[in-house]
Amino acid sequence: MPITVQFAAGPRLWPEYREPLARAFAAAGLDVAMTEAADPAAVDYIVFAPGGTITDFTPYTRCKAVLNLWAGVERIVDNPTLTQPLCRMVDPALTDGMVEYVVGHVLRHHLGMDQHILHQDGVWRNHLIPPIARERPVTILGLGALGAACGQALARLNFPVTGWSRSPKEVAGIRCLSGADGLAAALDGAQVVVLLLPLTAETESLLNADRFGLMAPGGFVINPGRGPLIDDAALLAALDSGQLAHATLDVFRQEPLPPAHPFWAHPKVTVTPHIAADTRAESASRLVAENIRRGEAGEPFLHQVDRARGY
Amino acid sequence: MPITVQFAAGPRLWPEYREPLARAFAAAGLDVAMTEAADPAAVDYIVFAPGGTITDFTPYTRCKAVLNLWAGVERIVDNPTLTQPLCRMVDPALTDGMVEYVVGHVLRHHLGMDQHILHQDGVWRNHLIPPIARERPVTILGLGALGAACGQALARLNFPVTGWSRSPKEVAGIRCLSGADGLAAALDGAQVVVLLLPLTAETESLLNADRFGLMAPGGFVINPGRGPLIDDAALLAALDSGQLAHATLDVFRQEPLPPAHPFWAHPKVTVTPHIAADTRAESASRLVAENIRRGEAGEPFLHQVDRARGY
Repeated sequence: MPITVQFAAGPRLWPEYREPLARAFAAAGLDVAMTEAADPAAVDYIVFAPGGTITDFTPYTRCKAVLNLWAGVERIVDNPTLTQPLCRMVDPALTDGMVEYVVGHVLRHHLGMDQHILHQDGVWRNHLIPPIARERPVTILGLGALGAACGQALARLNFPVTGWSRSPKEVAGIRCLSGADGLAAALDGAQVVVLLLPLTAETESLLNADRFGLMAPGGFVINPGRGPLIDDAALLAALDSGQLAHATLDVFRQEPLPPAHPFWAHPKVTVTPHIAADTRAESASRLVAENIRRGEAGEPFLHQVDRARGY
Repeated sequence: MPITVQFAAGPRLWPEYREPLARAFAAAGLDVAMTEAADPAAVDYIVFAPGGTITDFTPYTRCKAVLNLWAGVERIVDNPTLTQPLCRMVDPALTDGMVEYVVGHVLRHHLGMDQHILHQDGVWRNHLIPPIARERPVTILGLGALGAACGQALARLNFPVTGWSRSPKEVAGIRCLSGADGLAAALDGAQVVVLLLPLTAETESLLNADRFGLMAPGGFVINPGRGPLIDDAALLAALDSGQLAHATLDVFRQEPLPPAHPFWAHPKVTVTPHIAADTRAESASRLVAENIRRGEAGEPFLHQVDRARGY
């Protein structure tokens, strides 16, 4: 009897994922019947994304796992009806895309590119030589798969990288700090801060006025993680006072960011529309298939969420 | 008797280099008398830069080497009065700066950053997801110290990198081609081309209409090498036709680039004012001192120019 998979990640993603998932199931030797709508009591696995088509997981009595297509699970993890194992997406292409976004925007700010992109005015300002990367300390908050990969890529370009995580971690090539005391030390004198933390009750508004004040004056903030990690009013105040030089933000408390939001018009804010890391259907489908194979074989799932931690 | 060094790199650089050179000479155990003006017949070494204060090297009968503070020597190598050994600058900080510029601007174009930097208009365009670097072939023309370092840094970010040089070279991690046939193959389908060739009779206007035509449609050109490597009229035509999407240029046939030059106003050209790689006084001074130590010890100079090749 085929394995029943309900694709509950929403109608927008269905045409993008249908064929890659079918290919991945076949490559994994899985006999799968996949539909957008199924009898809940017959479903073995749910493929999900925020904004997906299931809000009540109670009727899915036979479901062995909910497989998320996104890395972030904060819009589903607190759903009290969700008692099945929940797995996050850790897509290698998603990690690649995030590294490219983070390294690109760190270098953009490091090199002062915007003054050239925005001011092609015929004035030859060749006295503005940036320092080299060795002289530009960068701090990454969050040392999960994405934060660690970004930190190591920046370290390979000679940036002195400090990484911070809630619990102690070791990442080759970067200085790793943890815990509450470690956070202040990690921010102290940082010229660029990159936010790649999961969103939890503890990390909401983690970057607030006090913590901006620990950074080097004229520093840069890059947030491709989660919008609510930043206290937005404190960020605007730090930009206006000159404490920060610029913020490049890919995620927001409300998305799409409303056209009237002050971030759009602020000359020291660059809004990008949640594009830093997008799941790619081919590689994501391979992980979904691998987790179904594991579930059928009774092996532990990859990237299963710890409900107590929230990620 | 002290070694006599004439600092002929111009009055602008004298205050920047005087103390770093003195420190480097002392660290190398060299007894040096350094001046801006000396009796030519008494000079042992000349520290030089384009636009420096010597045009006739004939009276420097005792001079053992001319030590250039810049990587490029095309403004001095053809001086018929220069018969002394000539050494190029290969400054590790200069290489670092070049790698940061090249990787930064490749990522800028790869990620399509300009649309966000220039159009903060409140429109949430989240359908514009760039490909990942693995799908973006980059070609580096020139595999000297700078080209090889840039190519390897891009390869570490997963860009498929092809390098081309006149004579065959091997650089780990990148596909290396050479010679006339290799040039066409190196440009074939390239989405980004970075110019880091020396300027010689053979490389002048190397990037011309035919060669732009070999690149992938909608490609990018980045020139932090030498201005005359590009046929400027052909570049403007390729941009206007859409064959190329954008050119980021750091070097020009005339510098400073005149305010009326069409590059400044062209929406598909970014002018940067020859800032990609600047020699840093501390590390450059150490190489100057090392070459003087070698000259005094009868050892071969580092980075001596081959007059026949022109670099």
